[in-house]
Amino acid sequence: MEKRIEYLVTWLQDKVKEAGANGALVGVSGGIDSAVVSYLIKRAFPDHSLGVLLPINKGVEDQPDALATVENADLDYIGIELTESYKATYSSIEEELKNKGEWNEENAQLRGANLQARLRMSTLYAVAQNYGYLVVGTDNAAEDYTGYFTKYGDGGVDLVPLIHLRKEEVREMASHLGVTDEVINKKPSAELWDGQSDEEEMGITYEAIDAYLRGESIDPEDERVLRNLHTTSEHKRQIPAGPPKYSEE
Amino acid sequence: MEKRIEYLVTWLQDKVKEAGANGALVGVSGGIDSAVVSYLIKRAFPDHSLGVLLPINKGVEDQPDALATVENADLDYIGIELTESYKATYSSIEEELKNKGEWNEENAQLRGANLQARLRMSTLYAVAQNYGYLVVGTDNAAEDYTGYFTKYGDGGVDLVPLIHLRKEEVREMASHLGVTDEVINKKPSAELWDGQSDEEEMGITYEAIDAYLRGESIDPEDERVLRNLHTTSEHKRQIPAGPPKYSEE
Repeated sequence: MEKRIEYLVTWLQDKVKEAGANGALVGVSGGIDSAVVSYLIKRAFPDHSLGVLLPINKGVEDQPDALATVENADLDYIGIELTESYKATYSSIEEELKNKGEWNEENAQLRGANLQARLRMSTLYAVAQNYGYLVVGTDNAAEDYTGYFTKYGDGGVDLVPLIHLRKEEVREMASHLGVTDEVINKKPSAELWDGQSDEEEMGITYEAIDAYLRGESIDPEDERVLRNLHTTSEHKRQIPAGPPKYSEE
Repeated sequence: MEKRIEYLVTWLQDKVKEAGANGALVGVSGGIDSAVVSYLIKRAFPDHSLGVLLPINKGVEDQPDALATVENADLDYIGIELTESYKATYSSIEEELKNKGEWNEENAQLRGANLQARLRMSTLYAVAQNYGYLVVGTDNAAEDYTGYFTKYGDGGVDLVPLIHLRKEEVREMASHLGVTDEVINKKPSAELWDGQSDEEEMGITYEAIDAYLRGESIDPEDERVLRNLHTTSEHKRQIPAGPPKYSEE
């Protein structure tokens, strides 16, 4: 595991150097994936790395797991509360759609959650540009395969070091790096809303996804759910679609 | 040209159907590229298309070219002012970076401009999700080749119909579609700030870029500038970079 960590640390250093950047930052949520990335960027850039806490509808001090993560990783950090930003953006959209009589209540909660993810991305890039850093993402192989991320939200990053790690491998790496058991054993949640659970929302467990990614056969119903998640999220793993080149004939 | 327009209209219809979406929208700036896309999506989805005006630091009524565009294209539209959203987001970031004593004044203007582009993207997706529409981008071949767009800002879209059109071809198509001469002959500007000019900022004219894209030889200094823009923006035309898969040996 130590060699695998070193491999990622060296890769991060190479990519930052190649880009002519000064270092790297990560958005720290209090979850296991961003905890692992926190440790990795601290190792790669001891004096040029930053954790960014981006609470919405609560304060920086209300994110004890995120604060413990940057402290344990000895990672320099900044907390930027985006409550006002979110409220102002959401209410401008809501007001105009309601004025037009076309507000759709049905997916309003998910829309708000995706907006939060995109405001966080927008803020991370503004902070990154302030320091000349790259933005490091936290998506792992299970999230990538299922497309369980917001397009141009948490998916909007420069580098994805964990992209080939199954959730179980992220846990193993976290444990090796010294991430606390509390963070490691927390129920995985994108925290899109209170009590939100990744596995409930996806309709499949990380255990089943990991088994599938290891090449094992899994329950047929699980496999159907998983293939469907993968297919419908294909566009999230690609650059924007353009038409084939037009030819006269 | 009519056949080429029909080709793009059919392609838009196919992609929206394939995604199971209801229609399409575009952010309308008052420039030529978004004007062309406005006409295209109106043709493709006469009753399921929308233009979105997203002024910042001014009102919807202060965008006469954008208003004229949606009117001429007979495109349904909505105006959402993002001044409050931008101010709240920018000042939260500024305050915390200044508190930390690490505010970088040097690229503050560009940072603000990129933040605006990303807030517009975030808003376009919230509106798109309200209607079940896809987000259609306006990047043309010249902007794509030079990377002259904000990553996850105006570059954060689902479909890019104009991606193979040189700027001169966009003008030709605009003229054919009925875009007004005023919009066609306007000095190209991403409107990142007052008086901003694309060509000044890139350090090369669209004429030279188009010539290069036609395969002609251009002034060596222009070619050097162009190749440099292309190389340093490579990451903007790719999905986030991940490490090669780790292997034990």
